Amino acid sequence: MRPDEARARLGALGFDDADAETLFEHFDDAERRGKLGHGYSRIEWLETQDFDPSAQPRRVATFPGFEHWDGNGALGYLTLAAICETLIGRPPDPVRVVSAERCFPTGMLGHWVRRLADAGLVALLTATSPARLAHPEGGEPLVGTNPLAIGLPNPEGEPIVVDVSMGKVTHGDVLRGAARPEDLVPFGGEYAHKAFALAVGLQGLVESFVGEEHGALLLVSQPELDHFAANLRERAAGLRLPGDS
Amino acid sequence: MRPDEARARLGALGFDDADAETLFEHFDDAERRGKLGHGYSRIEWLETQDFDPSAQPRRVATFPGFEHWDGNGALGYLTLAAICETLIGRPPDPVRVVSAERCFPTGMLGHWVRRLADAGLVALLTATSPARLAHPEGGEPLVGTNPLAIGLPNPEGEPIVVDVSMGKVTHGDVLRGAARPEDLVPFGGEYAHKAFALAVGLQGLVESFVGEEHGALLLVSQPELDHFAANLRERAAGLRLPGDS
Repeated sequence: MRPDEARARLGALGFDDADAETLFEHFDDAERRGKLGHGYSRIEWLETQDFDPSAQPRRVATFPGFEHWDGNGALGYLTLAAICETLIGRPPDPVRVVSAERCFPTGMLGHWVRRLADAGLVALLTATSPARLAHPEGGEPLVGTNPLAIGLPNPEGEPIVVDVSMGKVTHGDVLRGAARPEDLVPFGGEYAHKAFALAVGLQGLVESFVGEEHGALLLVSQPELDHFAANLRERAAGLRLPGDS
Repeated sequence: MRPDEARARLGALGFDDADAETLFEHFDDAERRGKLGHGYSRIEWLETQDFDPSAQPRRVATFPGFEHWDGNGALGYLTLAAICETLIGRPPDPVRVVSAERCFPTGMLGHWVRRLADAGLVALLTATSPARLAHPEGGEPLVGTNPLAIGLPNPEGEPIVVDVSMGKVTHGDVLRGAARPEDLVPFGGEYAHKAFALAVGLQGLVESFVGEEHGALLLVSQPELDHFAANLRERAAGLRLPGDS
């Protein structure tokens, strides 16, 4: 699929122009970064799903330093995009935590923290996904691959964008035949208990806000200091850092 | 060293009774969990260090949903203990983020989130440590082993306490000869880039609040829902879960 076709097929699904462009930007970013399981293939997948393209996420509760959102039937991508837009329009002072319920699918989490980093904001984002990781000792799948993304702005150049799934491979890669189902386990080999533990912790953290429906949790701040990314790039002397193409 | 001797030697270092007991509880908890690098051996290490046993951490800034603390010359253990005590005494409504500068050493992070979980609070805690992890492709150490701890309360039984260092082994284990220095690398083998990325992200996140001095960052909330830990224990059917002895 080429960009023109991707845009046209998103429009044909019934999204308004702004939402279609938000979705296109996410899928196109994933495609260009080689994360094909989050790219244009998801447009074909959306064409098989039943959803309301006019649904809009809602902010349902506001506390000092905390907001709670409800996807309200909108795709998770659009919920996270709306949250990012709100944060960039009214930046946290100095910190805001945002939880989102009925927020699925959330796609490539690095895309959202990169948006925030490009606006000068530090962000940590995680999201729950269907239970696909079993305990390293076996049994049924207990928790999702639950990625953790962290965006670090860089006023002097490219931000650093961490986006780590706790699975050795992604479900998307299994679906498109690029990975074997038996590799959908916590990463780390003999240290897989560590990735499993992180997936458990992130699942429980998100569920404490939103329950068992898919959700997301975001911590965003105005950095007190913002030279980490530039310093690390200098010290790394050209080595590829998280989020680099 | 036995518990009586550990208590006596902490008292001899000049701490008041309350601080000596706080430190003893941390070291004794680590000892009982087999995390010997964070246990009584640290009392011997403290005896070689120059510090002011009467120093007390200070809360230096308060915003809605956010607090910033300064270790103020106190040991990081005492700073985290004071922060936990404050959070338990006046729980977040519903979320509070706390950053702490000059907060070192922080010990076994699981100990602090367990305290909060025992009080019914969900917590995510990370802390920076000296740069000991190099990029998986080589070069100088760039980031600390930067553990991530998540505590999940369980009104029906034992909480779940995640505490994952991004290193394959700990610096403490290298110091006491239980691990080889060349194993102080990001965990994960062929997926070590994932643990390295997490260490980078957590380092940058903490440094955005407190700069390059050792610091800690804590997100704490009153759970909207608190049945995750009990449910997971049931589904795991007796398998050992994070934080179990």
